[in-house]
Amino acid sequence: MTENIYAGLTQLGGSTVQPKSPEEAVLERVPNPNPGAAYCVRFTAPEFTSLCPITGQPDFAHLVIDYVPGDWLVESKSLKLLLTSFRNHGAFHEACTVGIGKRLADELSPVWLRIGGYWYPRGGIPIDVFFQTGEPPKGVWIPSQDVPTYRGRG
Amino acid sequence: MTENIYAGLTQLGGSTVQPKSPEEAVLERVPNPNPGAAYCVRFTAPEFTSLCPITGQPDFAHLVIDYVPGDWLVESKSLKLLLTSFRNHGAFHEACTVGIGKRLADELSPVWLRIGGYWYPRGGIPIDVFFQTGEPPKGVWIPSQDVPTYRGRG
Amino acid sequence: MTENIYAGLTQLGGSTVQPKSPEEAVLERVPNPNPGAAYCVRFTAPEFTSLCPITGQPDFAHLVIDYVPGDWLVESKSLKLLLTSFRNHGAFHEACTVGIGKRLADELSPVWLRIGGYWYPRGGIPIDVFFQTGEPPKGVWIPSQDVPTYRGRG
Amino acid sequence: MTENIYAGLTQLGGSTVQPKSPEEAVLERVPNPNPGAAYCVRFTAPEFTSLCPITGQPDFAHLVIDYVPGDWLVESKSLKLLLTSFRNHGAFHEACTVGIGKRLADELSPVWLRIGGYWYPRGGIPIDVFFQTGEPPKGVWIPSQDVPTYRGRG
Amino acid sequence: MTENIYAGLTQLGGSTVQPKSPEEAVLERVPNPNPGAAYCVRFTAPEFTSLCPITGQPDFAHLVIDYVPGDWLVESKSLKLLLTSFRNHGAFHEACTVGIGKRLADELSPVWLRIGGYWYPRGGIPIDVFFQTGEPPKGVWIPSQDVPTYRGRG
Amino acid sequence: MTENIYAGLTQLGGSTVQPKSPEEAVLERVPNPNPGAAYCVRFTAPEFTSLCPITGQPDFAHLVIDYVPGDWLVESKSLKLLLTSFRNHGAFHEACTVGIGKRLADELSPVWLRIGGYWYPRGGIPIDVFFQTGEPPKGVWIPSQDVPTYRGRG
Amino acid sequence: MTENIYAGLTQLGGSTVQPKSPEEAVLERVPNPNPGAAYCVRFTAPEFTSLCPITGQPDFAHLVIDYVPGDWLVESKSLKLLLTSFRNHGAFHEACTVGIGKRLADELSPVWLRIGGYWYPRGGIPIDVFFQTGEPPKGVWIPSQDVPTYRGRG
Amino acid sequence: MTENIYAGLTQLGGSTVQPKSPEEAVLERVPNPNPGAAYCVRFTAPEFTSLCPITGQPDFAHLVIDYVPGDWLVESKSLKLLLTSFRNHGAFHEACTVGIGKRLADELSPVWLRIGGYWYPRGGIPIDVFFQTGEPPKGVWIPSQDVPTYRGRG
Amino acid sequence: MTENIYAGLTQLGGSTVQPKSPEEAVLERVPNPNPGAAYCVRFTAPEFTSLCPITGQPDFAHLVIDYVPGDWLVESKSLKLLLTSFRNHGAFHEACTVGIGKRLADELSPVWLRIGGYWYPRGGIPIDVFFQTGEPPKGVWIPSQDVPTYRGRG
Amino acid sequence: MTENIYAGLTQLGGSTVQPKSPEEAVLERVPNPNPGAAYCVRFTAPEFTSLCPITGQPDFAHLVIDYVPGDWLVESKSLKLLLTSFRNHGAFHEACTVGIGKRLADELSPVWLRIGGYWYPRGGIPIDVFFQTGEPPKGVWIPSQDVPTYRGRG
Ligand SMILES: [Ca+2]
Ligand SMILES: [Ca+2]
Ligand SMILES: [Ca+2]
Ligand SMILES: [Ca+2]
Ligand SMILES: [Ca+2]
Ligand SMILES: [Ca+2]
Ligand SMILES: [Ca+2]
Ligand SMILES: [Ca+2]
Ligand SMILES: [Ca+2]
Ligand SMILES: [Ca+2]
Ligand SMILES: [Ca+2]
Ligand SMILES: [Ca+2]
Ligand SMILES: [Ca+2]
Ligand SMILES: [Ca+2]
Ligand SMILES: [Ca+2]
Ligand SMILES: [Ca+2]
Repeated sequence: MTENIYAGLTQLGGSTVQPKSPEEAVLERVPNPNPGAAYCVRFTAPEFTSLCPITGQPDFAHLVIDYVPGDWLVESKSLKLLLTSFRNHGAFHEACTVGIGKRLADELSPVWLRIGGYWYPRGGIPIDVFFQTGEPPKGVWIPSQDVPTYRGRG
Repeated sequence: MTENIYAGLTQLGGSTVQPKSPEEAVLERVPNPNPGAAYCVRFTAPEFTSLCPITGQPDFAHLVIDYVPGDWLVESKSLKLLLTSFRNHGAFHEACTVGIGKRLADELSPVWLRIGGYWYPRGGIPIDVFFQTGEPPKGVWIPSQDVPTYRGRG
Repeated sequence: MTENIYAGLTQLGGSTVQPKSPEEAVLERVPNPNPGAAYCVRFTAPEFTSLCPITGQPDFAHLVIDYVPGDWLVESKSLKLLLTSFRNHGAFHEACTVGIGKRLADELSPVWLRIGGYWYPRGGIPIDVFFQTGEPPKGVWIPSQDVPTYRGRG
Repeated sequence: MTENIYAGLTQLGGSTVQPKSPEEAVLERVPNPNPGAAYCVRFTAPEFTSLCPITGQPDFAHLVIDYVPGDWLVESKSLKLLLTSFRNHGAFHEACTVGIGKRLADELSPVWLRIGGYWYPRGGIPIDVFFQTGEPPKGVWIPSQDVPTYRGRG
Repeated sequence: MTENIYAGLTQLGGSTVQPKSPEEAVLERVPNPNPGAAYCVRFTAPEFTSLCPITGQPDFAHLVIDYVPGDWLVESKSLKLLLTSFRNHGAFHEACTVGIGKRLADELSPVWLRIGGYWYPRGGIPIDVFFQTGEPPKGVWIPSQDVPTYRGRG
Repeated sequence: MTENIYAGLTQLGGSTVQPKSPEEAVLERVPNPNPGAAYCVRFTAPEFTSLCPITGQPDFAHLVIDYVPGDWLVESKSLKLLLTSFRNHGAFHEACTVGIGKRLADELSPVWLRIGGYWYPRGGIPIDVFFQTGEPPKGVWIPSQDVPTYRGRG
Repeated sequence: MTENIYAGLTQLGGSTVQPKSPEEAVLERVPNPNPGAAYCVRFTAPEFTSLCPITGQPDFAHLVIDYVPGDWLVESKSLKLLLTSFRNHGAFHEACTVGIGKRLADELSPVWLRIGGYWYPRGGIPIDVFFQTGEPPKGVWIPSQDVPTYRGRG
Repeated sequence: MTENIYAGLTQLGGSTVQPKSPEEAVLERVPNPNPGAAYCVRFTAPEFTSLCPITGQPDFAHLVIDYVPGDWLVESKSLKLLLTSFRNHGAFHEACTVGIGKRLADELSPVWLRIGGYWYPRGGIPIDVFFQTGEPPKGVWIPSQDVPTYRGRG
Repeated sequence: MTENIYAGLTQLGGSTVQPKSPEEAVLERVPNPNPGAAYCVRFTAPEFTSLCPITGQPDFAHLVIDYVPGDWLVESKSLKLLLTSFRNHGAFHEACTVGIGKRLADELSPVWLRIGGYWYPRGGIPIDVFFQTGEPPKGVWIPSQDVPTYRGRG
Repeated sequence: MTENIYAGLTQLGGSTVQPKSPEEAVLERVPNPNPGAAYCVRFTAPEFTSLCPITGQPDFAHLVIDYVPGDWLVESKSLKLLLTSFRNHGAFHEACTVGIGKRLADELSPVWLRIGGYWYPRGGIPIDVFFQTGEPPKGVWIPSQDVPTYRGRG
């Protein structure tokens, strides 16, 4: 019964062209099958990479996205393609993380959304960026992301 | 003295037929032996598997269920059989996790219930689903589920 | 100066007979040496075992007990003997955990008490039981019990 | 240049029918692109499930397979389908683990092969099975599988 | 095909009487279904308890047993019952651990056997006992038991 | 500039006589160099030992002390000497932990103070004691002490 | 588009002279590219070292800085140079940690800032210092720093 | 004294053009400053990414390279650029890992070299590849790479 | 049957006087109940403390002792008293650790003995001492002590 | 009795001038108090820092040194001062680590020596250097250094 909500999708299950930039990537969504339920969905994406806008060198991050759906769920393959589309895109850590969070919030109109960007160290110092669209809604359970702290060596 | 609450059960301790689908599975319950006490019960089920409704491929999840009993306790063997009945059932991660939570809430009428579904990665990105029936009741102790974050490799 | 509060004890330091059942076990208590202080005491008992009331097979649990003393402290050797007395006693996980909590609350009249029972898996699914006598008192520090989640294998 | 070794494959990249039993599963192989190199390949499969041949209840295992290829590499999608084909197959832990190891050894003719089966506990006691085709070849590096020991609770 | 090796068993799958002492416990065995294969089987038993022969107080241990089968496999339920039979048996740590190892070696005639007994601390100092029947056979893979070291607190 | 606050100290940097008892130990303090700032200072002392007042046997604990300074900082060498002075002093776990907390609170007049005493197991059961002078002050950041739970073996 | 906010910087990307003291170090800042978003930025600096103002011996710390930007972001290379400038600077743990926090708060005018200084042990007792500019702002997500507790040995 | 061995380098310390493919990347080397010493050098590269030669989708790996230098050391910036050059290169896991190992062995003529490729899961099953140029030389210390095993979830 | 080997002991089970120095401590032994078996016994003692012979300040260590018994087993309470007797004894780390190992070897005449002393840091640098009486005997299983490495902070 | 071996030392226990360079640092040694015993001593130094010889920027490392003493023990305070003397010294990772190992070997004439240098990442890639003076001597126990692998983020 829940399957037909995927009827309008164009990327899932077909052969896919990798989008070359975030602008080219198309985020797809399906109706929330449990619109009355208070629940949170988490995606963990340890395979994120983008480019430094100054030097062109690759940057890497471990991203964790939590959201409380409103009318829509994000289709997970299109989310993956959106993340992949940053592969050749230059952006600073803060702007990149917050930007992904804002785009998801804009296109999904969730009740609430949070993104944690845990970037690999540069100059011996990693940067983490923690963005959310506002205070978490009451009555919804949103566990800690609990990504281990960076520890250097030893 | 608490033992006779199990008198009406049909599955516990007998030889059991595996239910072939969630519809076929029968959840059994016993009167709460401590109806006046504020307590929470947790089941951890790391052996859950279902099918992808699109491709038919197996999916796997680690489930953790917390509930504050009202008049009833769930009988644990019948809970196990309910979870096992998803083995040949197709459902998306979000629908499957929330659906189990709702069915337990419907049939047990607990004071409160929470389910965390920690799914194995697909496309390099695991999905977690966090559902609860509402804000946790005051005065009851409900520890964090604290399932480790997915970390990829390294 | 604090030592003479132990004057009335019968079990501590003497040779002890193991009580054969919870009914036979005698919980001893001493006056709280710091009655005006807001503090919490934790006992961690990873060596707990009882019997399944249906099959007679041994069950095992890791118990953690927190309490905020009122007029009394529990004498720790008598607590150990109480826990040991469940060795040949049949009780379900929920009843056993809550029952120990209630008995301690009855006999010690603490300001507040909490017990976590972390049972070893049966049928691949461990049960945890979390009981407390009510909302934790304000101004007292009660750290998370933070017992690691069950993880199956791998 | 290494890509055309995949020319004869029938399962990779196409839409796939899930094999219903190990007998039905077809293991595919490709010529070893580095036949002169001493190397070892490891597959980690935490999503394995089969059935108990006596009770029909599901069993779960975390499998790790190491092999030193000879003339052939196993095609990884066909390996996955082989493992998936045990989903409705009844076999004891020892027979199942050793059987998978032997079948891979028969069909791939590797220089050497090892399989570790780390099964979820039954009756509170997990079974691990460690099979290899003989002493590891000299000069090849085969790291410890280092799967964490089962610890019960606490 | 492997199933009929269990034909002569009396405990598996039936209702079982708990043996009251190690002497009363009957270890059952089945023909090794892979007699030509070099493999090792590990049982991890974190739920072991016995009595101190001097004080009668309960002792607890985490046991890990590795063996390389010869003509026989141990039937796992009978192994569990043997371990359970120590519940009311008094024995020192060294004698208990080595004794279990020797009994298994006597009754199973394995190619080789190892037992590690990791006992809970007494007097602040835990004892571990490591017994094997001799040097491990060449060509068989026997991973480290890798039970974490006792660490006290902090 | 901050250095001259240490002008009146008698123990720091000089050769020191170990105090033989808590009574003999002198806690020294220096003016808080940041009196307007809301901050917390944590000392972690895993090398604490005292004596059992009944048996005279050594006890060991891992202590963690957090405080929000008011007008004074404790001089850390004098704190170390105070802790060392318990080496030949007999006191129960609860009294010893709360007593250290109270003495520091008396002599330092902090805005707030917390002490956690994580004692090594006796009779298989460790005791933890958690004391604070009252509810933590608003606006000050006091992280969890997060000392790992005692786990026994395995 | 976000790149030109870096136009006025003098240290980033050029060859840099190491500042010899905190006074010499110049903290640079750029306009916050997401001024309307509620987000937090974390820097983890496990490579911090300064000098003891009394003995001249090196001290080491692991620093974690969280801040909620207002109009400005700190430029990360200038932050690194500021931290490096303490290499030959003498300061006590409390003063050093709070001082860095205050300077960042002064020069960045953030909505809120927190610094945790986790110092390596001296005399067997490490000191941690936890400073923040006030209560965390509502609606912003600020995860626990979750740096592991010091554990001594074993 | 050791510094002038870097005299002929072209990439270190200068502004660098990212090589577009492994063919374009130039590995630079410097004379081994300790040619008589038996030592091993390890590089850990958790930021490696390449493309799947069939689907063009990104793959990720955590690489660890150990080598015992002969006449040459690899210059680390050129190694980083070589690894980065796989970003738009298609190669299977086995071929990619072994290929990097062989190229380093060819161009550096080390006494011995080992590479571990720990790839992120595809289809729920990660692949690890372990290559070395032959048996490790006697008398040189080569610690285990000890990369944690993949564990799925829970 | 094994119990009467303890007949000659004077310390076990009686009330005990703490020995004031290693010289005063009496190590007791009992006949090895399994003289023909190849086994190893491990004691883990995380509660060891002695004094610095120069400054008189307390030192702390985590000790692990492994031995392969010959004709004798050490009686564990007398071992504990021996270790406790160092409480007011001054000795350097190397001498203390090796000295305990030698004394045990002298008085127990084991087939083989090993002691690891893992000392708490002084001056930021812990010292570990690893002593054994010679190469481990063939055919006996002696697992790694695997005490975690000291890591400082972070 | 062992104390007088320290009679000729000039740095221990006195007030010390920090050496400004490795050349200025004086390594002191004392006669080995157990010259006939086969033992190994480990120093763990997580607080090491030096300078990059090209850029002058600080580098950090976690060092672990193992040695089997011959006629001499290194005096630990002089070792600490030697390590501290690299604070303003420029050297590459490989040269620095091997150089410290060689100097210790030269001045102590140990039976055998090993040094592991675990450097903090630069360019996202940490370097480890593993040096030893030759094959470890037979009969001496030298545990794995077991420093955790670098893992990046997530
Ligand atoms: Ca470190
Ligand atoms: Ca956690
Ligand atoms: Ca990684
Ligand atoms: Ca698993
Ligand atoms: Ca346990
Ligand atoms: Ca290990
Ligand atoms: Ca400790
Ligand atoms: Ca925790
Ligand atoms: Ca256990
Ligand atoms: Ca934590
Ligand atoms: Ca310890
Ligand atoms: Ca390991
Ligand atoms: Ca799992
Ligand atoms: Ca280890
Ligand atoms: Ca660190
Ligand atoms: Ca990662």
